Amino acid sequence: MAVQKPSLPKGTRDFSPTELAKRNYITDKIRAEFIKFGFQPIETPSFENYETLMGKYGEEGDRLIFKILNSGNFAEKVNSTDWETKNVSKLTPQICEKALRYDLTVPFARYVVQHQNDITFPFKRFQIQPVWRADRPQKGRFREFYQCDADVVGSNSLWQEVEFVQLYDAVFTSLNLKGVTIKINNRKILSGFAEVIGESEKLIDFTVALDKLDKIGQEGVINEMLSKGISNQAIEKISPIFGLRGTFSEKINLLKEILKDSETGKKGIEELEFIEKAITHLSLQTAILDLDVTLARGLNYYTGAIFEVAAPEGVAMGSIGGGGRYDDLTSIFGLKGISGVGISFGLDRICLVMEELNLFPQEIGDTLDVLCINFGEKEALQSLKLIQKLRSLGKKVELYPESAKMKKQMTYADKRNIPFVVLIGESECEKESFILKNMKTGEQKEYLITEMRKEIFQ
Amino acid sequence: MAVQKPSLPKGTRDFSPTELAKRNYITDKIRAEFIKFGFQPIETPSFENYETLMGKYGEEGDRLIFKILNSGNFAEKVNSTDWETKNVSKLTPQICEKALRYDLTVPFARYVVQHQNDITFPFKRFQIQPVWRADRPQKGRFREFYQCDADVVGSNSLWQEVEFVQLYDAVFTSLNLKGVTIKINNRKILSGFAEVIGESEKLIDFTVALDKLDKIGQEGVINEMLSKGISNQAIEKISPIFGLRGTFSEKINLLKEILKDSETGKKGIEELEFIEKAITHLSLQTAILDLDVTLARGLNYYTGAIFEVAAPEGVAMGSIGGGGRYDDLTSIFGLKGISGVGISFGLDRICLVMEELNLFPQEIGDTLDVLCINFGEKEALQSLKLIQKLRSLGKKVELYPESAKMKKQMTYADKRNIPFVVLIGESECEKESFILKNMKTGEQKEYLITEMRKEIFQ
Repeated sequence: MAVQKPSLPKGTRDFSPTELAKRNYITDKIRAEFIKFGFQPIETPSFENYETLMGKYGEEGDRLIFKILNSGNFAEKVNSTDWETKNVSKLTPQICEKALRYDLTVPFARYVVQHQNDITFPFKRFQIQPVWRADRPQKGRFREFYQCDADVVGSNSLWQEVEFVQLYDAVFTSLNLKGVTIKINNRKILSGFAEVIGESEKLIDFTVALDKLDKIGQEGVINEMLSKGISNQAIEKISPIFGLRGTFSEKINLLKEILKDSETGKKGIEELEFIEKAITHLSLQTAILDLDVTLARGLNYYTGAIFEVAAPEGVAMGSIGGGGRYDDLTSIFGLKGISGVGISFGLDRICLVMEELNLFPQEIGDTLDVLCINFGEKEALQSLKLIQKLRSLGKKVELYPESAKMKKQMTYADKRNIPFVVLIGESECEKESFILKNMKTGEQKEYLITEMRKEIFQ
Repeated sequence: MAVQKPSLPKGTRDFSPTELAKRNYITDKIRAEFIKFGFQPIETPSFENYETLMGKYGEEGDRLIFKILNSGNFAEKVNSTDWETKNVSKLTPQICEKALRYDLTVPFARYVVQHQNDITFPFKRFQIQPVWRADRPQKGRFREFYQCDADVVGSNSLWQEVEFVQLYDAVFTSLNLKGVTIKINNRKILSGFAEVIGESEKLIDFTVALDKLDKIGQEGVINEMLSKGISNQAIEKISPIFGLRGTFSEKINLLKEILKDSETGKKGIEELEFIEKAITHLSLQTAILDLDVTLARGLNYYTGAIFEVAAPEGVAMGSIGGGGRYDDLTSIFGLKGISGVGISFGLDRICLVMEELNLFPQEIGDTLDVLCINFGEKEALQSLKLIQKLRSLGKKVELYPESAKMKKQMTYADKRNIPFVVLIGESECEKESFILKNMKTGEQKEYLITEMRKEIFQ
């Protein structure tokens, strides 16, 4: 066999112990808060039936889903015209009956419907698993990446929205990532806008344009709206929202004026006020709650609250989380009337922000507390007895595998940044003792094995 | 869109919170021991380049690897003759450039070679990730399942084998799964057998037959050997191994007699003795180390020690773990002379054994410590203030989302097996107090919110 120069498929990554320590640090904190908030973990398979996923993410989504080739003679039963004409879009479902999951939401909806008789509603679940998209890879965008989702299904209560704001605050506080902005909006506000300007049927064009205010500015948004056939008059009518500034309450007051003729809009305002009032009463630890009426995020999906989290001011990074309420997700699988609301954490971006702000504790990369130097068979055996005790005290310990030169073993200890080295040579074997070397201070001290306590390794 | 009855691809599974609690209980214990033994976590992508995986697992393995269809117009550049003749084996590499990983070992070898300049050797890594095989699903065999592997590369030292025996013992002890048998053999013993009977070139046929002794008995093994062209005389010569009984040392003594003319065989004995001597000196906590000369396990792979773990006596279950030493795994990717040794834990089977023996602690399914009953807006807000405090004490708490009928909320608490319920009604709001109901005893007690301590929820 010819030797292969190893490489990875584009858009995928290996995670080294150091990188993984950082990622696990984040997911452990997220998981811990999910659990404290009463969410329960589930896992779904990496691949789903082709038809479970297709048609759920729009045309672009369908293209980006990775399909798995059928095993065996996949070409045997395909339609011969499709084969001869190489009609790939017709051939794909004939040669692939499975596909890799594209997000965690559709599999979750499928899960809820399939297991509805075993689930106690309201059902609060979290899920931390990879997803795959055949997107063009670029900085911060990968073909395999983790999603960290928490959702509640089976409850219309706005207390859920309140709890999700608290959950974002709890996670980012526990990560020491202070000053994130939790932006909130409501689909009903956006519908209200479209309604009052008499362009309800252009709701999507309108909000897609509005969503870009940050990026292309007021003039850009107006031009895009015009190009979509929204009239000058209509835009004029809505123009106060471009200048929406001030506190949450000040914005709400202006919205009340703008949306006074829209029942839907007023309902949206009421929902926002409920959430804001509760959060003010409960107060957030480190995050800021802000109303952003331009926020749309996959509008077709959300029916109520819309969330997005921005990194602390001064850190250039897209959103590090998002979510919202969707009233009828499970109906695609035949279960109607189940409202859901959920949020997601963007692991890769949170990791980048934490790196930029230097927020990872220094010790998270430390994978070993003690290395025992190997002086030969008899000494190694004696060392292993000590190691057993240390491990039973919860310490991370290893024996250097070979009785190599002292210098080589010490270099290994240095490279792995090991704080303590234990030396058991011939004379220590006889005395039933060991020498403990503190690698930071260089200090050495001899102890009897019977004197060994956890505290001396600190 | 037509409503779809949801289902899963065959051989795949959803994991409910209860099932996941059990699985996580096991993997958490495995991970904790891996870490105490100095292993560092890595993760590799779910899919690798097609050519990274193909040809590494034999013909059968190649067939069982899931291939991922190229995105876009996959048929565009295929060889037209292959297309016209529907030559699927030639077409597959032309329409699939990626494949799902089949195990964690080949990706690990690829990782080591690719990152060799960043790795400090000896490199002890662990990896707990799913793998995929297009096997025919059956009881206990799935198309997606987790592997939990620990390997060391870059050390020939037999201390590694000693540590792996200790690691198996530590994990199964920590799971309270007592009395597992760690079976050990050595490829050199098997080579020695083939050598002394003059059938070195039939080593694989010989060991494949011998490996079946448990299942088909002595006569079956002999018949299979004869059918493979191994002579009656040769089998006669080796027949003492069929009756190999007794302690480890007694078996070693018999092996010394059988293999006295094979240098390779004698080396194998020496290695086994080294490991056995060390383990006897260090002693195991709950596992038993046993020599099983019929053990082969994918012989082509292993060059030294071979491990396999059997469930405690009385539990009918195949192996729950296995591993061994492989001297040249990374050479397929161009890095020669790196010896490796590793072991694996069979998560699904361990889970089945633990269930059969009723070894899961009862409380692992408990996902919530306290439920706060929702009596309305004002009361809910007051409850959320208490909930904040409880969560900051590490408690898992939630507010029932709706101010539904008391009975409905209590039923929910029962179904989720929640030990404590907190009631804050109108009068408690005024008094700044709460009522704590112990769901097991039915006892109720009122506390002031200022009196709230973690201990009262126990």
